[in-house]
Amino acid sequence: MGELRIRSALVTGANRGIGLGFVQHLLALPNPPEVVFAACRDPKGQRAQELQKLASKHRNLVIVPLEVTDPASIKAAAASVGEHLKGSGLNLLINNAGIAKINSLDTETQKDMSEVYTTNTAAPLLLSQAFLPLLKKAAQERPGSGLSCSKAAIVNISSIAGSIKEMYLWEAAQCASYRCSKAALNMLTRCQSLGYREHGIFCVTLHPGWVQTDMGTAGGHTPPLTVDASIGGMMKVLSSLSEKDTGSFLDWEGNVVPW
Amino acid sequence: MGELRIRSALVTGANRGIGLGFVQHLLALPNPPEVVFAACRDPKGQRAQELQKLASKHRNLVIVPLEVTDPASIKAAAASVGEHLKGSGLNLLINNAGIAKINSLDTETQKDMSEVYTTNTAAPLLLSQAFLPLLKKAAQERPGSGLSCSKAAIVNISSIAGSIKEMYLWEAAQCASYRCSKAALNMLTRCQSLGYREHGIFCVTLHPGWVQTDMGTAGGHTPPLTVDASIGGMMKVLSSLSEKDTGSFLDWEGNVVPW
Ligand SMILES: NC(=O)c1ccc[n+]([C@@H]2O[C@H](COP(=O)([O-])OP(=O)(O)OC[C@H]3O[C@@H](n4cnc5c(N)ncnc54)[C@H](OP(=O)(O)O)[C@@H]3O)[C@@H](O)[C@H]2O)c1
Ligand SMILES: NC(=O)c1ccc[n+]([C@@H]2O[C@H](COP(=O)([O-])OP(=O)(O)OC[C@H]3O[C@@H](n4cnc5c(N)ncnc54)[C@H](OP(=O)(O)O)[C@@H]3O)[C@@H](O)[C@H]2O)c1
Repeated sequence: MGELRIRSALVTGANRGIGLGFVQHLLALPNPPEVVFAACRDPKGQRAQELQKLASKHRNLVIVPLEVTDPASIKAAAASVGEHLKGSGLNLLINNAGIAKINSLDTETQKDMSEVYTTNTAAPLLLSQAFLPLLKKAAQERPGSGLSCSKAAIVNISSIAGSIKEMYLWEAAQCASYRCSKAALNMLTRCQSLGYREHGIFCVTLHPGWVQTDMGTAGGHTPPLTVDASIGGMMKVLSSLSEKDTGSFLDWEGNVVPW
Repeated sequence: MGELRIRSALVTGANRGIGLGFVQHLLALPNPPEVVFAACRDPKGQRAQELQKLASKHRNLVIVPLEVTDPASIKAAAASVGEHLKGSGLNLLINNAGIAKINSLDTETQKDMSEVYTTNTAAPLLLSQAFLPLLKKAAQERPGSGLSCSKAAIVNISSIAGSIKEMYLWEAAQCASYRCSKAALNMLTRCQSLGYREHGIFCVTLHPGWVQTDMGTAGGHTPPLTVDASIGGMMKVLSSLSEKDTGSFLDWEGNVVPW
């Protein structure tokens, strides 16, 4: 099992929770990336203060404004990242931004179904399209080597709640709109793994565990995992993956999660 | 293996293709339902002529206007069906209406993702909510008997294209928006099977096979199955299902399709 060796990465929803954790762990790598792009929708807002503090300490951390449900914002973010990279590629795109609505089957609405899907499923598709040229470029910078997260990769942050087989914690939280969006995100990841393989891009969908974040603690629960433990696990998993794993659904410990 | 014995059924997207086929087969049952509701969005339009002709021959066929992406239209349809049933329940809701966009990964858009999801995934959720009181009533009319399609059931018409494991015919048709919507519909079916079990309602998600309809022949293909063969198979399957099968994903021959 190697170590992640990348020149650049972008994380969406990077201002808090799991996204912020990824940024911190990327910056702390023994060989840190030349640049980590932390995308967040309101860089000047209250909820981005910790990220701003981090940026003041790390010259290789670049904050990028990004509202993932707005195609124009996605395009602008890709353009600004492209400029920053001055002709070199982007190794790692982590599609982490996500939302959940605490609904029972009875209280789901068309609006909630649509909002959750647009954020959790359509956005990772559009972001991957927009960053595809930069991901391709990163893959071309390492010709010959097999697919891996150190070369060029799309990492979609899904959830075991999207496992159709498991129906994890159904009694505690029905959240059909969320479950449907994550099952669809898993399908998207499979599509991307098949469609982007020829471009040298690795794709994986991850369950981070049940983690102590705003989302994880919604409903008054105390999740078992700290952000640090979850990200530590996922970083290890990402560094260990190779060509044969593209298109798979894994948890933070590297276990295969059933579709 | 018994025969479907139901007093009432509703089929969405009933004016052509698989939906029209379901209506015809329901009317042709040895013990036909007292009433078959054929829901279609433009009952007076060109594309509903065959359905209108059928209605002129069958007094137990009732055409109901229904645009499945419009919550108000869904409510109105449920109200009008409720009135028609005069206090008795609805045994069978077949969520069949669906769309596909012929896209590659590169050409998918936020709009296509959203439209396909609203029609193929959110609509079956909203329709099931709206018809839930009538489905519950049907279940109460047969107390004691186990879950079955003859008692009270939601049948979601999915596709093997929604199987995350299979990635069926990826090379021929990428259609990520469609695949994602059907994977999500499969998840919805699992949610419904768990949520509605206590109400006595059976839920299943079906792959009809590759069928000679407008959708099936899009792109110039000639699918192997006639509408008649597909529906004949699905009717047999539906009549054979019992409590243990609720929440499963089956094809027109009764084979389990992997998630
Ligand atoms: N926590 C868990 O136990 C758990 C378990 C399984 C999966 N996950 C998944 O892990 C990912 C991160 O979750 P988390 O626990 O860190 O959630 P969180 O604490 O609620 O943080 C969500 C992040 O996503 C961002 N975001 C949401 N909508 C956005 C939009 N439209 N545009 C840009 N950014 C947006 C938020 O930004 P704002 O601050 O601007 O709102 C925030 O940075 C999600 O995909 C979630 O589904 C979490
Ligand atoms: N054909 C196949 O090989 C195949 C394979 C797997 C799964 N399926 C699934 O089987 C189902 C039926 O497909 P099909 O082959 O019969 O397709 P089709 O020939 O294209 O017919 C689609 C039907 O859905 C209706 N519909 C679409 N959007 C609607 C809306 N917003 N409101 C109301 N009705 C709407 C259409 O009504 P209009 O006439 O008004 O447009 C039409 O009646 C779909 O869910 C499809 O995904 C088909």
